[in-house]
Amino acid sequence: MSGNSIGKLFTVTSFGESHGPALGAIVDGCPPGLELSEADLQHDLDRRKPGTSRHTTQRREADAVRILSGVFEGRTTGTPIGLLIENTDQRSKDYSGIMDRFRPGHADYTYQQKYGIRDYRGGGRSSARETAMRVAAGGIAKRYLRSRYGIEIRGHLSQLGENVPRAFDWNAVETNPFFWPDADMVPELEAYMDALRKSGDSVGAKVTVVAANVPPGLGEPVFDRLDADIAHALMSINAVKGVEIGAGFASVAQKGTEHRDEITPEGFLSNHAGGVLGGISSGQDIVASIALKPTSSLRLPGRSVNVHGEPIEVVTTGRHDPCVGIRATPIAEAMLAIVLMDHALRHRAQNADVTSETPRIPAGRSE
Amino acid sequence: MSGNSIGKLFTVTSFGESHGPALGAIVDGCPPGLELSEADLQHDLDRRKPGTSRHTTQRREADAVRILSGVFEGRTTGTPIGLLIENTDQRSKDYSGIMDRFRPGHADYTYQQKYGIRDYRGGGRSSARETAMRVAAGGIAKRYLRSRYGIEIRGHLSQLGENVPRAFDWNAVETNPFFWPDADMVPELEAYMDALRKSGDSVGAKVTVVAANVPPGLGEPVFDRLDADIAHALMSINAVKGVEIGAGFASVAQKGTEHRDEITPEGFLSNHAGGVLGGISSGQDIVASIALKPTSSLRLPGRSVNVHGEPIEVVTTGRHDPCVGIRATPIAEAMLAIVLMDHALRHRAQNADVTSETPRIPAGRSE
Amino acid sequence: MSGNSIGKLFTVTSFGESHGPALGAIVDGCPPGLELSEADLQHDLDRRKPGTSRHTTQRREADAVRILSGVFEGRTTGTPIGLLIENTDQRSKDYSGIMDRFRPGHADYTYQQKYGIRDYRGGGRSSARETAMRVAAGGIAKRYLRSRYGIEIRGHLSQLGENVPRAFDWNAVETNPFFWPDADMVPELEAYMDALRKSGDSVGAKVTVVAANVPPGLGEPVFDRLDADIAHALMSINAVKGVEIGAGFASVAQKGTEHRDEITPEGFLSNHAGGVLGGISSGQDIVASIALKPTSSLRLPGRSVNVHGEPIEVVTTGRHDPCVGIRATPIAEAMLAIVLMDHALRHRAQNADVTSETPRIPAGRSE
Amino acid sequence: MSGNSIGKLFTVTSFGESHGPALGAIVDGCPPGLELSEADLQHDLDRRKPGTSRHTTQRREADAVRILSGVFEGRTTGTPIGLLIENTDQRSKDYSGIMDRFRPGHADYTYQQKYGIRDYRGGGRSSARETAMRVAAGGIAKRYLRSRYGIEIRGHLSQLGENVPRAFDWNAVETNPFFWPDADMVPELEAYMDALRKSGDSVGAKVTVVAANVPPGLGEPVFDRLDADIAHALMSINAVKGVEIGAGFASVAQKGTEHRDEITPEGFLSNHAGGVLGGISSGQDIVASIALKPTSSLRLPGRSVNVHGEPIEVVTTGRHDPCVGIRATPIAEAMLAIVLMDHALRHRAQNADVTSETPRIPAGRSE
Repeated sequence: MSGNSIGKLFTVTSFGESHGPALGAIVDGCPPGLELSEADLQHDLDRRKPGTSRHTTQRREADAVRILSGVFEGRTTGTPIGLLIENTDQRSKDYSGIMDRFRPGHADYTYQQKYGIRDYRGGGRSSARETAMRVAAGGIAKRYLRSRYGIEIRGHLSQLGENVPRAFDWNAVETNPFFWPDADMVPELEAYMDALRKSGDSVGAKVTVVAANVPPGLGEPVFDRLDADIAHALMSINAVKGVEIGAGFASVAQKGTEHRDEITPEGFLSNHAGGVLGGISSGQDIVASIALKPTSSLRLPGRSVNVHGEPIEVVTTGRHDPCVGIRATPIAEAMLAIVLMDHALRHRAQNADVTSETPRIPAGRSE
Repeated sequence: MSGNSIGKLFTVTSFGESHGPALGAIVDGCPPGLELSEADLQHDLDRRKPGTSRHTTQRREADAVRILSGVFEGRTTGTPIGLLIENTDQRSKDYSGIMDRFRPGHADYTYQQKYGIRDYRGGGRSSARETAMRVAAGGIAKRYLRSRYGIEIRGHLSQLGENVPRAFDWNAVETNPFFWPDADMVPELEAYMDALRKSGDSVGAKVTVVAANVPPGLGEPVFDRLDADIAHALMSINAVKGVEIGAGFASVAQKGTEHRDEITPEGFLSNHAGGVLGGISSGQDIVASIALKPTSSLRLPGRSVNVHGEPIEVVTTGRHDPCVGIRATPIAEAMLAIVLMDHALRHRAQNADVTSETPRIPAGRSE
Repeated sequence: MSGNSIGKLFTVTSFGESHGPALGAIVDGCPPGLELSEADLQHDLDRRKPGTSRHTTQRREADAVRILSGVFEGRTTGTPIGLLIENTDQRSKDYSGIMDRFRPGHADYTYQQKYGIRDYRGGGRSSARETAMRVAAGGIAKRYLRSRYGIEIRGHLSQLGENVPRAFDWNAVETNPFFWPDADMVPELEAYMDALRKSGDSVGAKVTVVAANVPPGLGEPVFDRLDADIAHALMSINAVKGVEIGAGFASVAQKGTEHRDEITPEGFLSNHAGGVLGGISSGQDIVASIALKPTSSLRLPGRSVNVHGEPIEVVTTGRHDPCVGIRATPIAEAMLAIVLMDHALRHRAQNADVTSETPRIPAGRSE
Repeated sequence: MSGNSIGKLFTVTSFGESHGPALGAIVDGCPPGLELSEADLQHDLDRRKPGTSRHTTQRREADAVRILSGVFEGRTTGTPIGLLIENTDQRSKDYSGIMDRFRPGHADYTYQQKYGIRDYRGGGRSSARETAMRVAAGGIAKRYLRSRYGIEIRGHLSQLGENVPRAFDWNAVETNPFFWPDADMVPELEAYMDALRKSGDSVGAKVTVVAANVPPGLGEPVFDRLDADIAHALMSINAVKGVEIGAGFASVAQKGTEHRDEITPEGFLSNHAGGVLGGISSGQDIVASIALKPTSSLRLPGRSVNVHGEPIEVVTTGRHDPCVGIRATPIAEAMLAIVLMDHALRHRAQNADVTSETPRIPAGRSE
């Protein structure tokens, strides 16, 4: 139950540093009987994989996941599932220059203060590499939620720097390296990113994830409300600085008559709530967005200090993302899946016998 | 460990419905030796108390907290502290009209679907009344953090509907019923709120909480990162739809050169990180904001359905907040205190022996 | 989640000192819809109540429990249930003599070392008074297990000092103050206890609890095995020094051919396993026994030291149990109920969809 | 936090089946700075390794453990430590005969009922193979406890079938394959075991573990008492049917004057408490014993049923332990180490600032 575990019934525990021998995770609590293979998990990992476009990190990794336990004759057994990904492309020499310095905007300083020792190669445990395991574990959750409940979880970029989509089409999302829902804008985004890379700077992004067909009733008030656990899981992703549900921060300036989602027998008329009311799912699409900060690994020098507190200048060479947001989409989907899986199991535990005579209100449109 | 507990080492577990006999909480894990009395906890509760101004709920409650255990001769013993607040002003008759109907924007529908049964009086467990216990428990954490570490936690409203402060002065915050940091704006806000109440509508708000003098090193990556636990705790407050740390959602459009907080031997030059880097505190002020949605209890009718799915119109009479955000400030402070307390203890557990030779970087200014 | 909580889905958190204003508990995770009232919980509390016979503590307590939340119109709502028992008979003056001394065999010394401060009156938090809350919370679990699964939990004394029953009849257990299953022996036990009290000494006891009609499949290997959680819950009772399941310590000298419970289509032929195999319930009666040490509160002087390490002699006057085991039976039943409740809910979460085509093996006889 | 994790601050999570590709564990919460290498963990694993004597399972395994993360330049970093052991010697064909049958005394039936599916090869997850990971994880805890606190943890067999030691010498324990503390008895035990193996039967054992130099104050009443957590951890070991602390079940027949450990300024005069009073360590040796049942894998036929409920006879061929107790000693040491590690960290969290002016009472002799 230390800081490297998430979830109460569906629990994911992970280990692994950016430049260590391997990354791994144990996924505990998956019910038995789910069809699962290594190929099943590879799709989302490939979506996340570095080196798939010139706009992402130039590190080439196989990111091949092995399932070491918990599956027998193609189905989960209900016992814990061990996952392993070997690190094959590390280039330690890239990092020798930062052994005794703190890169501004990175976790170097805070890790040093906390532990008194840090594996400086590639950011060690603070690197985004560990999110590969989240994507693999989330893949198990996604499959279970889909097959058992028909829940579909999808994400897309909703803002890249100052750019926002002018049209929206889910089908466009998987056809470009930005997970962008407006196909017509892709050339202009590519030009934008090329210019950014040349400049040596970086920019932030906003990612939106949506879960459809979620049954009503998930969430454990008052502290383990569904939205609170979603916020926790999404905020735990590297570089995230904000999380919102439904109308989110736009709610501040809204009037009550505007924000509230009215109900008719045909269903909800809007979804400012983002699918969660009083911390419990309503049956509407769950809609959450995250704000990702711009990468601090820049080719433009920045002022910092070294481990002795002396002033230095830091410049990053080697391989880095000019926009980490581009890769966060599958990670955010995975985290939402992990939370929904945990809550689906928790709901079964306490409320399995509840027969509510109240008819279910049909979901309205996503907001 | 069910949904009504928060925290791993400093644990707060609560119970109580809006119209039941009492609210209570058990606070477990407070170290021994802290001076504590009922009067100590009453200050923050009074800040939250309904009926203190015409702008908040017209329900008059004593909200007097009793300490039932865990304190001996004026000091905590290290054993669990039981807290109790009797409910004295309930007016059940106000709610008989909603027994079989779902108020739009409230948790009525979701609680019904989840439990098959609900205490409809005043929203039952979903009511904001339960936050009184959070404020009491948070009071214990605040006192410990202040006396042991010198940590100060303060909050203020940073947006009320479309209104934002034009100046900032911490001293103004406690002098008006809006926790507003710009004393000159108070008359215009009062006029704004009077007009809103007359109209029967409501509006949202944004609250910002700041913790100063937090030592570096708090946070347990990768899942129990300090910012992730803060997001969880703040999102668990009724009516919250978004949480951000530091620059938050503004990070999306920022360039890396702008967002990163450079460091000199005199200290950090900015605080876009909001005091958390890589999920661990940096020693800078921790700055978090929450978005609160407008109350859905309105005197303006809204469309909904009853428990049989038939269309109805809902209008709320009785006592309600036109802006719940006004009261959320002490609750957000309490939740931040509870999280920091938990992490301070967790940090002691694993890192007590760490002697980092790295000098501490002085905190810069809050952003 | 600190040390005063037990259970993952059905969680009991308690507070309260022997001589504080009240004892309380929060029971979280009880499914909605269970009929529950204060009278329901009073039966087990009365079985535990001091002053019911001359053989137990002469302290007279009403031990009247109040339900403060979580029940609406006579049924649980699924929200947390707050329980409260006021302490009405405390006689603080009895304890002034031990403020600065350590009674041998009690927790005085260890509490002082751990917390640096202790509420010495009546043993403070270390007193057996806090078990009243366990009995109340266990009562909720017992009722749910009975109504939902038909599970019956009963306990009895199986050894008092050197005395063992010569016959066994469940019906006898509730008819004498010793929970003894052999009615004919009661007079000789009363004589035994009178002699013991006159002598000023005390003796230990062994209590056995049995749960019948437990469905197979409960338990979460490898660490939260059902027997491991039962051992944890029972060992947490004051004065317990040992826990065994089924044949227990007798298994050491048994041969494999003797210990293993063979199976025929008519059912198991024996129950040395005590109803748990591989950490999972088999459907057989769950049989567990606990060893309770003799009370250390004696009228016979014992050597000890005071808080300065100086040698002293300690003699206890006032009110004490000559055999705490007599009262442990309802507490052990309650703890077994709490564990089975937690596991029943956990089993539903992960295994609700499992349809085992294997026919259930009928339970054999209890061992 | 599902069933395959143990510990709150020092958490061990494991995975792996007897005949899957690998066993693994993640150890989270180890403080930074501890010297650790793979060779360090190998010693205890070798003590446990099958095939080291003719008296244990004839399966030959390298049991070579790899450290995949959490160690940098020979010291722990404070990040999670991933451990992996490849399964190299499995002989699946030995188990094809039990695919559709339940071996009496094994977990086959209960696993089938719980999960509806089981990996029958070698007992799958229910096999004792998974304890290899416990020993590896416990090795980390042992090293930290020794280097930071000077705590020494040792175990020995205290009963083998009906045989008990006639003399006691710690030095003898590591010199024979039985962990027996009486060197003179070894030839007679070897003869005993040879006869047992020839007969095709098996017998149980009792193992005692002792932790010396434990500081007073460890344990978190009332539910996470040190003895309760020890009982949980030890009962979670395969084949354990009972746990006792100190005098254990002998306490039942003891008088209070005999059981209580009197105190003089020179120290405790006895240790019937086994080092734990009121759930908290006293500074005395912690002494715990476990009862292990005789193996149910016998060459002597037993009656059972198959998956359709039809009567069958079961005989085990292949490789099995005639006495699993012989190998349990390092596992019990490991579990005790894991619990003490967790409690040492928890104690630091809440009580680090406690300065007890009470002098520490010297430990007396072990009982």
